[in-house]
Amino acid sequence: MALFIQKFGGTSVGNVERIRRIAERIERTHRDGHQVVVVVSAMSGETDRLMRLAHDVTPQPDDRELAVLLSSGERVAIALLAMRLRGCGINARSFTGRQVGIVTNSSHTRARIAKVTAAPVRQALADGVLPIVAGFQGVNAQSEVTTLGRGGSDLTAVALAAALKASRCVIFTDVDGVFTADPGVVPSARRIPTLSYEAMLELASLGAKVLQARSVEFAARYNVPVEVRSTFQEGAGTLVTHEDADMEQAAVSGVTGDRNQAKITVVGVPDRPGIAAHVLGAMADAAVVVDMIIQNVSHGGQFTDISFTVPRNDLARALPLVERTADTIGAKTVEVREDIAKVSLVGVGMQSHSGVASKMFRTLSGESINIMMISTSEIKISCVLDERDCDKAVRALHAGFGLDRRPDAGDETGRPAPPARKARRPA
Amino acid sequence: MALFIQKFGGTSVGNVERIRRIAERIERTHRDGHQVVVVVSAMSGETDRLMRLAHDVTPQPDDRELAVLLSSGERVAIALLAMRLRGCGINARSFTGRQVGIVTNSSHTRARIAKVTAAPVRQALADGVLPIVAGFQGVNAQSEVTTLGRGGSDLTAVALAAALKASRCVIFTDVDGVFTADPGVVPSARRIPTLSYEAMLELASLGAKVLQARSVEFAARYNVPVEVRSTFQEGAGTLVTHEDADMEQAAVSGVTGDRNQAKITVVGVPDRPGIAAHVLGAMADAAVVVDMIIQNVSHGGQFTDISFTVPRNDLARALPLVERTADTIGAKTVEVREDIAKVSLVGVGMQSHSGVASKMFRTLSGESINIMMISTSEIKISCVLDERDCDKAVRALHAGFGLDRRPDAGDETGRPAPPARKARRPA
Repeated sequence: MALFIQKFGGTSVGNVERIRRIAERIERTHRDGHQVVVVVSAMSGETDRLMRLAHDVTPQPDDRELAVLLSSGERVAIALLAMRLRGCGINARSFTGRQVGIVTNSSHTRARIAKVTAAPVRQALADGVLPIVAGFQGVNAQSEVTTLGRGGSDLTAVALAAALKASRCVIFTDVDGVFTADPGVVPSARRIPTLSYEAMLELASLGAKVLQARSVEFAARYNVPVEVRSTFQEGAGTLVTHEDADMEQAAVSGVTGDRNQAKITVVGVPDRPGIAAHVLGAMADAAVVVDMIIQNVSHGGQFTDISFTVPRNDLARALPLVERTADTIGAKTVEVREDIAKVSLVGVGMQSHSGVASKMFRTLSGESINIMMISTSEIKISCVLDERDCDKAVRALHAGFGLDRRPDAGDETGRPAPPARKARRPA
Repeated sequence: MALFIQKFGGTSVGNVERIRRIAERIERTHRDGHQVVVVVSAMSGETDRLMRLAHDVTPQPDDRELAVLLSSGERVAIALLAMRLRGCGINARSFTGRQVGIVTNSSHTRARIAKVTAAPVRQALADGVLPIVAGFQGVNAQSEVTTLGRGGSDLTAVALAAALKASRCVIFTDVDGVFTADPGVVPSARRIPTLSYEAMLELASLGAKVLQARSVEFAARYNVPVEVRSTFQEGAGTLVTHEDADMEQAAVSGVTGDRNQAKITVVGVPDRPGIAAHVLGAMADAAVVVDMIIQNVSHGGQFTDISFTVPRNDLARALPLVERTADTIGAKTVEVREDIAKVSLVGVGMQSHSGVASKMFRTLSGESINIMMISTSEIKISCVLDERDCDKAVRALHAGFGLDRRPDAGDETGRPAPPARKARRPA
């Protein structure tokens, strides 16, 4: 008898008909003799509706009250799903974040999980009860409601899986799994059957919106096997696990294109030590995540340029700070480009395959695509380029690295899932 | 500095505009230097919406899950109101039923309050915080959510007022107060300025839908002065307090007409002791509230008839049980009348004014209205009559007992409110 966490997102519980369908799916796993703990999000649209109400009531809603407000959405979902299952003769019971023992820090709307006791859920399982848990919510040390930020239900599911040592955390969503590229851009994109946490993390933070990045970090840390699969389609999804020693890696797992990028260049900075720290410190203070950073070698030893990228929707907040800092350090001017995109190759196999970078540049050059910035990590190469070239670059790289070959034609990504868990312990 | 509980019902928080308006009203009391604890219901329509969802999901929703579902409505309301007040610079903070310490028994959807600790609210008040409390909800000993039944927010407000020894519990609603009769039936009906708990209780349970009956009982028991007044109109309401020794009472405070009545007669019962207990015991087992009971004196000593009234919407449940019992005890037949109504005179002053009953019968007879059943208590006289005569009877009695006279014409009900509280302690 295995223990599965099954997480259903907002579209999966979006209306009464869908709640009935996922109840059937849960019932099937239950009748197969497995233990199941279900995590649900609010019905789709509900969080947005509550947000609108809050902003209609007052321009800057208080964070503590926002958490109380938004957490009500998941309460509705757990109660409806639990009563449906009970109506089908299953001994289901709803649990709020507090009842499950998800204890967080006090950041009311972007809380971080400090502890998951899960004792009541463990007891419920021992009593033959099927727990239906509210995602996205917890309580702080003062027993006040907190929420985990957008996509936080994934995190609830993974954290519960870690606490309960579940065999697998299954994230049901409206796509079949993680793909080698966005199928909307690259029609020949394939579902990736298995993926390492590291690669998934890069894909998640690079704009593949399947799994919340924090939940992948959490899964990696506690070695929780996570499967992403479709709610309403049968068939396998993508299994995300720790990289096995004997797991042959594809050089490249996938290609992403991310348009949520803006590039800021501080031009003509008198070149002396600490300049970059000065500019980027201002960004850190304002909680703007800076991604790629390039400082040009100064010619003639007098002036230098610093370029970096920020999320495009943080630009309005970042720019005045940069301009103030540029004044302070005596820079000539500040330039901004919003019409850029970041295209990335991700794959754990890059570590051992040489020549991936040079092949990437060659492929882009073959399409006459100009590269503005480059950054590399052990499992990722990213290029900033003109936004107009984004889709063309993704398609060219997808084809160039053979990602649209059939699995049965010898692609290593087509191999079956590795055995479930390794014994790595929580940090 | 006085402490007021202010309770706002669903229509008072029915939309964003109304939430802003009641926030202004709360702010005014707060700025006047008083302490305020606010209790709110779910936005109007929300409880019905959630109930519909539940019944769409499964025909017989589980009570425990129903409580989780319905309690989400009040959470939305407290969060929105608290964030509005915070936006206006008031240090407001929302409290759920659990956070306030409203502990109930385990009847999930009709829970009875066992204990109100109110410690967090007391602490909040000491810290200068304005608490916004979710009505209608509590937790049982297992820390599971429970709800107090329809109208339960009144009970939350009164229970908090008792626990905090508030100067007054103000119930804001969509009417100006308690009237001598339904103004829709009797246009000359007047607002009653002050009323005893006992009279209010009779009026509440007789169909004046202003205050939930259980909350009046609670207020009487803990001697909480309750004021019913309009949310959106200025001006006095009705103050409900303990009857003062020096409080001159009107003979009659009000007239009610209640159409939610059905009359069952068990005809031709062999007359022997214990027959009434047999018939009414079946009703009690089925939790049907039996109101008026008449057993005719048996003529000839052999057979008797037993008539009683039940709420009309319980008739379908009651009738088969009565018919089974009638068979068992050898009754001839069972007769049912649904087209009846109960018209009642209520007034604490009846105790000391003789002749009220005979004047009531004379008044009805003067209108050629036939009386089917009569029951009396110390502060109430009720007559069952044909439903078609209901409004006519209410109007005739309202006029006959001088209830539509102006207060300044010498009616005792027009006297000002008595001093706030007496020292009677909780039982």
